[in-house]
Amino acid sequence: MEMDHTAILLIDCPDRKGVVATIADFLYRHGANVLHADQHQDNDQKLFFMRVEWDLADFDIDAEAFKREFLPIAAKFEMNWRLEYGKTRPAVAIFVSRHLHCLVDLLYRYQIGEFQCVIPLIISNHTDAKPLADFYGVPFHHVPVTAANKAEAERRQVELLEANNVSLTVLARYMQVLSSDFVARHPRKIINVHHSFLPAFSGAKPYHAAFERGVKLIGATSHYVTDVLDEGPIIEQDVIRVSHRDNARDLIHKGRDVERTVLSRAVQWHLQHRILCYGNKTVVFD
Amino acid sequence: MEMDHTAILLIDCPDRKGVVATIADFLYRHGANVLHADQHQDNDQKLFFMRVEWDLADFDIDAEAFKREFLPIAAKFEMNWRLEYGKTRPAVAIFVSRHLHCLVDLLYRYQIGEFQCVIPLIISNHTDAKPLADFYGVPFHHVPVTAANKAEAERRQVELLEANNVSLTVLARYMQVLSSDFVARHPRKIINVHHSFLPAFSGAKPYHAAFERGVKLIGATSHYVTDVLDEGPIIEQDVIRVSHRDNARDLIHKGRDVERTVLSRAVQWHLQHRILCYGNKTVVFD
Amino acid sequence: MEMDHTAILLIDCPDRKGVVATIADFLYRHGANVLHADQHQDNDQKLFFMRVEWDLADFDIDAEAFKREFLPIAAKFEMNWRLEYGKTRPAVAIFVSRHLHCLVDLLYRYQIGEFQCVIPLIISNHTDAKPLADFYGVPFHHVPVTAANKAEAERRQVELLEANNVSLTVLARYMQVLSSDFVARHPRKIINVHHSFLPAFSGAKPYHAAFERGVKLIGATSHYVTDVLDEGPIIEQDVIRVSHRDNARDLIHKGRDVERTVLSRAVQWHLQHRILCYGNKTVVFD
Amino acid sequence: MEMDHTAILLIDCPDRKGVVATIADFLYRHGANVLHADQHQDNDQKLFFMRVEWDLADFDIDAEAFKREFLPIAAKFEMNWRLEYGKTRPAVAIFVSRHLHCLVDLLYRYQIGEFQCVIPLIISNHTDAKPLADFYGVPFHHVPVTAANKAEAERRQVELLEANNVSLTVLARYMQVLSSDFVARHPRKIINVHHSFLPAFSGAKPYHAAFERGVKLIGATSHYVTDVLDEGPIIEQDVIRVSHRDNARDLIHKGRDVERTVLSRAVQWHLQHRILCYGNKTVVFD
Repeated sequence: MEMDHTAILLIDCPDRKGVVATIADFLYRHGANVLHADQHQDNDQKLFFMRVEWDLADFDIDAEAFKREFLPIAAKFEMNWRLEYGKTRPAVAIFVSRHLHCLVDLLYRYQIGEFQCVIPLIISNHTDAKPLADFYGVPFHHVPVTAANKAEAERRQVELLEANNVSLTVLARYMQVLSSDFVARHPRKIINVHHSFLPAFSGAKPYHAAFERGVKLIGATSHYVTDVLDEGPIIEQDVIRVSHRDNARDLIHKGRDVERTVLSRAVQWHLQHRILCYGNKTVVFD
Repeated sequence: MEMDHTAILLIDCPDRKGVVATIADFLYRHGANVLHADQHQDNDQKLFFMRVEWDLADFDIDAEAFKREFLPIAAKFEMNWRLEYGKTRPAVAIFVSRHLHCLVDLLYRYQIGEFQCVIPLIISNHTDAKPLADFYGVPFHHVPVTAANKAEAERRQVELLEANNVSLTVLARYMQVLSSDFVARHPRKIINVHHSFLPAFSGAKPYHAAFERGVKLIGATSHYVTDVLDEGPIIEQDVIRVSHRDNARDLIHKGRDVERTVLSRAVQWHLQHRILCYGNKTVVFD
Repeated sequence: MEMDHTAILLIDCPDRKGVVATIADFLYRHGANVLHADQHQDNDQKLFFMRVEWDLADFDIDAEAFKREFLPIAAKFEMNWRLEYGKTRPAVAIFVSRHLHCLVDLLYRYQIGEFQCVIPLIISNHTDAKPLADFYGVPFHHVPVTAANKAEAERRQVELLEANNVSLTVLARYMQVLSSDFVARHPRKIINVHHSFLPAFSGAKPYHAAFERGVKLIGATSHYVTDVLDEGPIIEQDVIRVSHRDNARDLIHKGRDVERTVLSRAVQWHLQHRILCYGNKTVVFD
Repeated sequence: MEMDHTAILLIDCPDRKGVVATIADFLYRHGANVLHADQHQDNDQKLFFMRVEWDLADFDIDAEAFKREFLPIAAKFEMNWRLEYGKTRPAVAIFVSRHLHCLVDLLYRYQIGEFQCVIPLIISNHTDAKPLADFYGVPFHHVPVTAANKAEAERRQVELLEANNVSLTVLARYMQVLSSDFVARHPRKIINVHHSFLPAFSGAKPYHAAFERGVKLIGATSHYVTDVLDEGPIIEQDVIRVSHRDNARDLIHKGRDVERTVLSRAVQWHLQHRILCYGNKTVVFD
């Protein structure tokens, strides 16, 4: 994979003159061969966002030295920044309940190398996903969740995430609401798929609500999970056409294809370090 | 135009055996050469819907005789029904305020004969649309609306509609809310375009709301107007992709193209007698 | 599944008056409770097409009696017709080579009951698909194909299809061209997915050709296989947006999602008896 | 309009280290406040493309000085480059025959200020467009074209373009093929809309060809005109779904909506200086 030999720098900061020149000069002086660069200015809020990816072949400093040398620049421009190495394989956990279409899609893409990550575990409140996890060689953890044991179940989940060094949790149709505490521990580190075109039909049973309303398109939304249910920063959305011929069950069937697509794209873009959040929105670099 | 020599029968009734056989037999006995036929069963609510269009060439009864002979059938099956003649040109009124993109689109389609109707008048609370109305030879009526004169203005509008025998009113970005009374006078006879993917972002300033929420698709919705704002039966919806690069003004620009498309489709389908309403939904026959 | 208790009648014939009335009357007299009915007139070629599906609960004749009683009607109107029972599970064979994304999709849909069929075998000229076949419990047959053994390999394939009573063969990215003889044995019984928006980029390496041409959308096409490569009746097509940022490999990645979608839809519609072919085209009933 | 106070620099050159740093430093030193910047690397062909737009408020050199100071940089990196000022209104000519839907769309967008240009003339081989041209106040020139007078007609067209300082010619459904000579005079300065999803159905009567082939989507393509008919660099494409219910005339109707959309986008992007051509392709910056 190409990403194996690249580094990626992600920056957001107040939009001030000289920021691009300074970064470009810094990378040039250290021998970076830039492969992709993209930037965005929010001219209303006077914010600057940048993603730059370069070939490490001739780059003359390592992560340590980078940090040391880049810190004064970052301080001068008041940057939030992070440096990612393409060869790193972050650990991703998948949470799933009984609908497996998103999981099937994620695991196949994982197997053929589309995702630059490792998936050390799948956690489910049911056992339906176990055979699939076994087939793809991913350890499966059954953590039942009830009203009574919810806090305890989340403690177990957190333990598992920490034991596996998980840096991204993907809710692939996981039908339990995570506690505020759980969410707060993993800011911008949990991606969910909601089975509607948010903000339409937030909450439970969106396809039934869509059917009742008589919409002509249904959709799905992938987003980072925040404390407010279905209100986190949207990463991707897509829709599919429906008609009066489709009953609620047909909407559920058709919706599955959109759900898996928008979730897989969100996971892919996160792993390619293409997403920056600000306010309650995302910048998704091409 | 093909429709000039055809008749269209629209039916909805409880779904009972024999209804199709009875209608087909009736049409056959009278020499109908069926050009298009489409039916829909709502198997949950046990309702039956049908649209059938036939060539009048060999059809041996006129509207009067049709009514007389069809009434017993309609009674037996408890049908709502109507018979339309393709050659009829219903009168359509267009209401518009200052954004003219939908009007431009409607008038051009009208001019080249896409719509089977006459447009005897355009009503506006501003004068911006007058030159365009003049160019297309459509009488233009300026009816200013203020908080103070609203009831009076609506009286004037109703007079104009009645004087012109209007059977369909199209709100082509008309920015005044019609009174309940006005709406009640014209059930399923007013089509509006809302500049969002309803039910998301109902109400005012939907593009700004969409921008705030950070959605990745924006849309537009054409619907029949009912007493509850933005809640009438949806006829058509479509969306267009946006990104973090689009500010609120860009959304407005991009949205225009979707608005005119969904409105023109709705008007077209209405005029082709393709739409049946039931509950708060539409059946739109192909 | 609903289809378990239904029958479906598919008809094409010259478009003559009385055909709908006659069929509707026939079904009504035998107690059919019609669930869906759709018809199409090709007014240029004067052809009539119909699909009608009914609940068998009160239907008073079996397949044998149906045939006996319907034959005179069919003869009178010069119909091509077939009667299908929803509960029948036709046998479907999947051919695949090394790209498994379509197979993954088909087998998952099969497992969760989306397809009204049995899949008694997968045939491949490679062994890559074997673990997946094993996981889903579908017998796997490795039939290597070389220039030298091609005729022999096809004989083996035909034996397998016949031994399993296969009535539909799905080429899920099977990279061998089938002989005219093989195709002639299975008219309208082989569905292929071509990885381009046909007729653009027919032949080999369509994504590379699309990349060379600099198109802004790429697509995929599912079609029945005929003697002329990539020229059979098109069942479904879809596209996805690409840009200058996508190299040929990116097109291949993005295209996978479209390929599996259009192939799965085609298989679904075929199994739901929604497709009629005429000339080199398809009618796909809603 | 925002563009009134900005400058845009477009560059393509061999991809070498230091190019971004050099440009960014140059702009920074002269006080540019960068509003948008986008770059692209073709890693196969080792080419670099860049578009940068900045606010001129604090920019301390004019076009003359820019040229003088930038030339050594351009020479060093072997750049093709151009500097555009947003406030410039290039002159655009529209050629049209009898189908006016694209023209209607272009002129309305022009009127409401969507396009940063002037349109000093419309040229047509028919007179159908004259009233519309008059309504929008654009001088109309009727230049009939026959087999006999073609060379003469083109001379007249060239005169008109030159007299009006035209820098972009838009073929808005102009049904005459331009001579090689005419095309050679205006490299990358003529935008055409072809009414198919190229390269499918190039040549005449694409909708009829699409109907014959039984495709399930139809499309349109905007592209720069080159010497080889329908083979120039593609700028934009889009599609719309069709079905067996659509005859050739329906395809023509549906296609109109796609044609005007892809043509207007192409014109817009060209005027916003977002397009760079290389080989036979385009880079279209966001």
